Formats: sequence, structure tokens, C-alpha cells
Amino acid sequence: MNILKEFSVTGKVVVILSGGLDSSTLLHHVKKNAWGTDCGVEAYALTYFYGQKHSKEIEMAEYQAKVVGVKEHKLIDISFLKDLTKGASALTDDAIQVPHIKDVLGDPQPLSYVPNRNMILLSISVSYAESVGSLDVFYGAQKHDTYSGYWDASPEFLDLMNKVLLLNRRNKVQIRAPFMNLKKKELIEIGMKLGVDYSKTWSCYNGREKACGVCGTCSDRIKAFKDMKMKDLLEYEIDINW
Amino acid sequence: MNILKEFSVTGKVVVILSGGLDSSTLLHHVKKNAWGTDCGVEAYALTYFYGQKHSKEIEMAEYQAKVVGVKEHKLIDISFLKDLTKGASALTDDAIQVPHIKDVLGDPQPLSYVPNRNMILLSISVSYAESVGSLDVFYGAQKHDTYSGYWDASPEFLDLMNKVLLLNRRNKVQIRAPFMNLKKKELIEIGMKLGVDYSKTWSCYNGREKACGVCGTCSDRIKAFKDMKMKDLLEYEIDINW
Repeated sequence: MNILKEFSVTGKVVVILSGGLDSSTLLHHVKKNAWGTDCGVEAYALTYFYGQKHSKEIEMAEYQAKVVGVKEHKLIDISFLKDLTKGASALTDDAIQVPHIKDVLGDPQPLSYVPNRNMILLSISVSYAESVGSLDVFYGAQKHDTYSGYWDASPEFLDLMNKVLLLNRRNKVQIRAPFMNLKKKELIEIGMKLGVDYSKTWSCYNGREKACGVCGTCSDRIKAFKDMKMKDLLEYEIDINW
Repeated sequence: MNILKEFSVTGKVVVILSGGLDSSTLLHHVKKNAWGTDCGVEAYALTYFYGQKHSKEIEMAEYQAKVVGVKEHKLIDISFLKDLTKGASALTDDAIQVPHIKDVLGDPQPLSYVPNRNMILLSISVSYAESVGSLDVFYGAQKHDTYSGYWDASPEFLDLMNKVLLLNRRNKVQIRAPFMNLKKKELIEIGMKLGVDYSKTWSCYNGREKACGVCGTCSDRIKAFKDMKMKDLLEYEIDINW
């Protein structure tokens, strides 16, 4: 997959970096194929947080941004979402327990769905891209996101979002999700070749010292490592039979 | 214009309320046609601010929300936009002077354009709507917005945004802009009939004690009142020949 062919020639890319497995792999992948080359491409990383400034995810995002050498790493506080979506999501309302197993495909949305969050994150990222003079926002959505019931991580969603953005007469920023059709397992495969340190990525929905090992994203992550016949070096609260 | 016919039957509406002339008129208009009727519709107002918590606009928005009796009025701090779009807009960068005359139609965007701001505001508003159980976000874009060069206030933009939102399998929130084809002058006409106190609305781009009278929105506003052969009761820094 040659990302260079895919993105525009502004020499600047924005990468949305949560500090999780997917976006960290994406960051290294884009580096390898873009600003890690001799093309002089500069990377701008964006990390969103919900008020918890010292969370594990931010720590990991900062680590990964430093490792690959981004030009700028911005932290964006979107803690207003917590109040705004109260009662509507397990991710932003502490009173709703984070689900232990994945919800199934279809309607209703998974409990961890935050109303319209992806559109918010993407639109802010596009604003950042337009401001720094980049036309490319890289976004780590992978195959599983689509099949987990998140309408706002589907290929149709991204397609239409990009159509909206083409209406901009001057700066036609586009959202690029090169991992859209790949499984998490395949991401790990890519990442291992790029030397990504996965013990420095965070996927757990629960913001505790160690990953819980039982929430939706922990389960996905553990399964992906098992499928690869590898041990995840991240510390978990529970014993995992690797 | 019967808004009741237009919006869905959740009994809840979200109104984006900047405290300006357009959105204040919209708020009263929606009240008249929706929750001001016997239909028991509840209104939720959303006001965005950029860090300046005690600005004139917020003061006016709070006044208008109180006057019409909304169920909830949320203030959302999007001051992150100031840093994120630094250098890219006269509205968020103090170093760039707010333009004194309207930029012309077309490319480039007006200096007061904030990269992708409308998509950000609308996506947050949709999140709020989805969270409170409303499927309708009312938005005060009027004809002039489209012709000022703002790609993200055009009918095409709203159409496509609504198409994206229809992908949501469960809560198909739609953005409603009933003033899209009306001139500011016509808004004032509607507002006067509804008893809107326009001295309690704020349009000026400059956040000083009195409206400057020379920025783009001040000019528009003054012209609209003049076209109506009316005097704007808002205080201006300069003498205006009504």
C-alpha cells in the first residue's frame, strides 16, 4: 500500500492519534510512507481527550508522537462532550457501565457509542488540517469498527464526509483511512514490521493503571494478538492465557 | 412557513443560538411555531463561545433563551479552535484584523472564515440533539451567508451534511435551516412581528462594549435595518445616519 500515491502534495499530513493500537500503527505507517521518506513531508498529530489530562492514552500518544518525530502534537480538550452526551453513552457517563462484551452488529448502537463523536473529531481535525495547510487527515478506522455497529466509522460515512469536504472551494481536505479494510490482526502485522512498541499503546475503555482485559476494545486487542500467536506486552488486570 | 410540518415528532428541538440577530429570530420563530404552541415541544439551546465567558454575545443569548423559555441552555467552550486555527482566520487570531468591508463572493474565503467551523458546530449540535432525544437541529443560516463565500453555510453543504446524518441507523438527526432563502431584512420583518428585542442581540465581530458598525456583520445588519426603514436600537461606536 503506497500512501504517497493516495495523498495530496501539500507536504503536510494530519494524523489523528488516540494513543491506541490502530492510530499508533497508522502514525508509524504514514511516517514510513510519507515523512519518513525523502519527500520532506511534515506530520501534525492530534489527540483528543475528555478532561483527564494525565490519562494513559495521552501518555501513549505523546510517546508515539515523539518516537516518530511529528512537527507538532496538539492535545484537544473535548470534555464538553461528557456533559453534552450525559446519559447517552457508556464512554462519557460514569454511571453507565462500560460493556464487558461486544454488542452485536446493527441497531441499537453499541453502548460505547458516543453520539456523533466521530463527526466531531473529524471536523475538528479537518479544521486543523486546513489551518496548517494540509489536505490530508489520516484516521485509523479499521475493518472491525465498521462491523461493531458504529455507523460513523463506516466506509459510507467517510465517503459522504469527503463529499461534503469537496464543497470547500479552496482547501479540499480529505479524510484518509488506509486501514479501513484491514483487521486489527493485520494492523499488528504491519506495526511489528515497523517496530511499533505496542506496550506503549492503550486500547482499554477503562482508564485505570492497567488495562482491564474484559471491555470491548481489550477483548478485540487480546484476540488479535492471540490470532497472531503473539503475547501483548501491555499489562492487564487479569491473567490472560497467551 | 409552518415549521411544525418540517420537523420530526420527537417533541424536542435543538436551536443553535449565537445571540446574534439571525439565531435570535430563529429561536422566537421556532417557539412560535413549535413549543409556543400547544404541542408541548421542548427546546434546547446551544451557544458556542471561544473562551470569553462574559462576552456580549453570550449575554444576549442568555437573555433570549430566558425570554422564550427554553428547557435547557448549554454553553459550549470551543476555545480550542482559537489555537488550532491560529493564523488562518481573522475571527480566531487577534493578529489578523477583522475586515472592514465584506469580501466578495467566491474564492478566496472571507477573512472571517474559520476553517471548517460550521461543520464542527453542527456536529456538536447533532451530538447534543441525539443525546437529549431530538432529531432536529435548528440553525439560523440565511441567504446572505451563502453569498458571502462561506462554503459551509451553503444549501449544498447542509444537504450533504443531512445525507451523512441519515446514515445513523437509529437517530437520524437532521439540520433545519428555515431561513436559508431569506434575507436579513426579511428576518427582521419576521422578528418584529414576534416581538424580538433586537437591542438584545449582538452581531459585531469585534467584542467591545458597543458594536463597531464597520465590520462585515455590522454592515449587513445596519443595511438590513435601513432597508426596513427602521432604526437599530443597538448601540454603535460610530454615528449612523438612520
